[in-house]
Amino acid sequence: MRSEFEFINHIKDKYSLKVIGDDCAVLPRDGDFDMVVTADMLVEDIDFRLDWTTPEFLGHKALAVSLSDVAAMGAKPLWAMLSIAVPESLWNTDFLDRFYGGWHALANEHRVKLVGGDISRTPDKLVIDSIVGGEAGKGKAILRRGAEPGDLIFVSGGLGGAAGGLRLLEDGQNFRGLGDDPKDNLILRQLQSIPQVSIGNLLQSHGLATSMIDLSDGLSSDLVHLMEASETGCILDLDDVPVADHLCDIFTADDARQMALNGGEDFELLFTVKPEDEERVSKLGFTRIGLITSAAGSYVVVSGKTTSPLTPAGYQHFV
Amino acid sequence: MRSEFEFINHIKDKYSLKVIGDDCAVLPRDGDFDMVVTADMLVEDIDFRLDWTTPEFLGHKALAVSLSDVAAMGAKPLWAMLSIAVPESLWNTDFLDRFYGGWHALANEHRVKLVGGDISRTPDKLVIDSIVGGEAGKGKAILRRGAEPGDLIFVSGGLGGAAGGLRLLEDGQNFRGLGDDPKDNLILRQLQSIPQVSIGNLLQSHGLATSMIDLSDGLSSDLVHLMEASETGCILDLDDVPVADHLCDIFTADDARQMALNGGEDFELLFTVKPEDEERVSKLGFTRIGLITSAAGSYVVVSGKTTSPLTPAGYQHFV
Repeated sequence: MRSEFEFINHIKDKYSLKVIGDDCAVLPRDGDFDMVVTADMLVEDIDFRLDWTTPEFLGHKALAVSLSDVAAMGAKPLWAMLSIAVPESLWNTDFLDRFYGGWHALANEHRVKLVGGDISRTPDKLVIDSIVGGEAGKGKAILRRGAEPGDLIFVSGGLGGAAGGLRLLEDGQNFRGLGDDPKDNLILRQLQSIPQVSIGNLLQSHGLATSMIDLSDGLSSDLVHLMEASETGCILDLDDVPVADHLCDIFTADDARQMALNGGEDFELLFTVKPEDEERVSKLGFTRIGLITSAAGSYVVVSGKTTSPLTPAGYQHFV
Repeated sequence: MRSEFEFINHIKDKYSLKVIGDDCAVLPRDGDFDMVVTADMLVEDIDFRLDWTTPEFLGHKALAVSLSDVAAMGAKPLWAMLSIAVPESLWNTDFLDRFYGGWHALANEHRVKLVGGDISRTPDKLVIDSIVGGEAGKGKAILRRGAEPGDLIFVSGGLGGAAGGLRLLEDGQNFRGLGDDPKDNLILRQLQSIPQVSIGNLLQSHGLATSMIDLSDGLSSDLVHLMEASETGCILDLDDVPVADHLCDIFTADDARQMALNGGEDFELLFTVKPEDEERVSKLGFTRIGLITSAAGSYVVVSGKTTSPLTPAGYQHFV
């Protein structure tokens, strides 16, 4: 079966759609700024489960996934639209009020204004489409295709936390409020994702990232997306991939490493940096995890003395 | 049960969302232009049925409904995004290719570029969110709230055709290609809606419309939306409402009139005009169907010597 990425490339080629292929579309706005815009669809029982989350968390996450796309461009979010198809069983409850409450709490943090959208009915499953628009200085949005051989690969934060939270939810755990239990912390990483808008802005304003993507599908997949766009290869130092806090307390070291490598929805930023900026970027607290090579299509993982091919094993809807 | 319009007003008030309430959001872009943006969600078995349409017609309609919103602002469409949640049963067919074919045929007519969107999987029903962005001269977008007492109410085209087509589809008719049968013509009005972008642009560029909305829910409902936004009243001359071609050939005069008054999805434009522009607008081929009054909240239908209250009986998702 073709994956959704293959289908998108097919449509992109067939209709010569040059703008498509980054976390956001970049469109000219005026002499000083470009506009960025993105859309993310979340479907009940595919992208979320109502019995695992709360309406507030879901509202938060619906906005967070799109803010993360804006963050990945180093852009500033400004406005949003929300299209939502609601089953009648939810319409007659306080679900939507609580959902919009969670949405707005995050929107207010980022000074994002809701300007439109649509409300429809659905026979069964809840569906949300989250649209966010923003701005970046003219020609300053950070694209996926900017990585060059010799650049270093960096990542923000620790990885695998959201995947760990998902595993706990699948195993029947619930979120019981933030306390001393690391399990709740991991579940929160899954349910209440944090979009790294200020990190994206910092990297962009200091001209530090040559390419960038947000970690939504999983490191192994998103790194390959970046390489494909840049037409480069990479060597990933698996032992340097930062594992999320608490993950090793609950899962085996092997499981934790797999989650950091392939787990989705951490919404940290993956970016490349010129070698001369390595020290500066390291001092900002980001972690170097690999190197860009000129061997386009060659994606290698190194761990200790072992070398193996990097297999994209992150999330995709159609496999 | 609260309607979706009541819920939207509730959210608008709760979060002081000033931009919400028109066919498109109008956002400042630069010194010369504003940006307009709109989203429309279409859900299988609520907004369309796969056994009544073709993938090409559905792709066309997904874009048409949003272009119609842009038309209602007197704005020019420029770019679009398409989010789509697809069941696995359709993913493995040529459905999406044909859908994007229909979408692009209409997009090319309007020189609209696809710049992004999302593809997700859905457990069951197909869901489409259609997003279109465009531009209007600074402060020149035509809003719903501009109608003033004494203005005349006009409409483009004939009404009720899409509702007639829907009735035929509900009665088991299929579209068999355009020929001499008026039934196929009506079904096409339902399946392949024509967004009136050039009419919207004409009215805007000549400064002829004081307020405007597209007829998506149905005349009786959309007229009330316009009145509520303008805080005015209206008198609708029912005998002057233009009935779509072919409608009276197939349905009784009473049925045809009800369809023209309450039927949705004609995507003609409903607008108001200053009295001094009446002749000019009539000469352009548009039909005067009523008058704006200062009696906010008073919506009256006149037919012959009979006067009755106008009841919004167009489509809503939650009743």
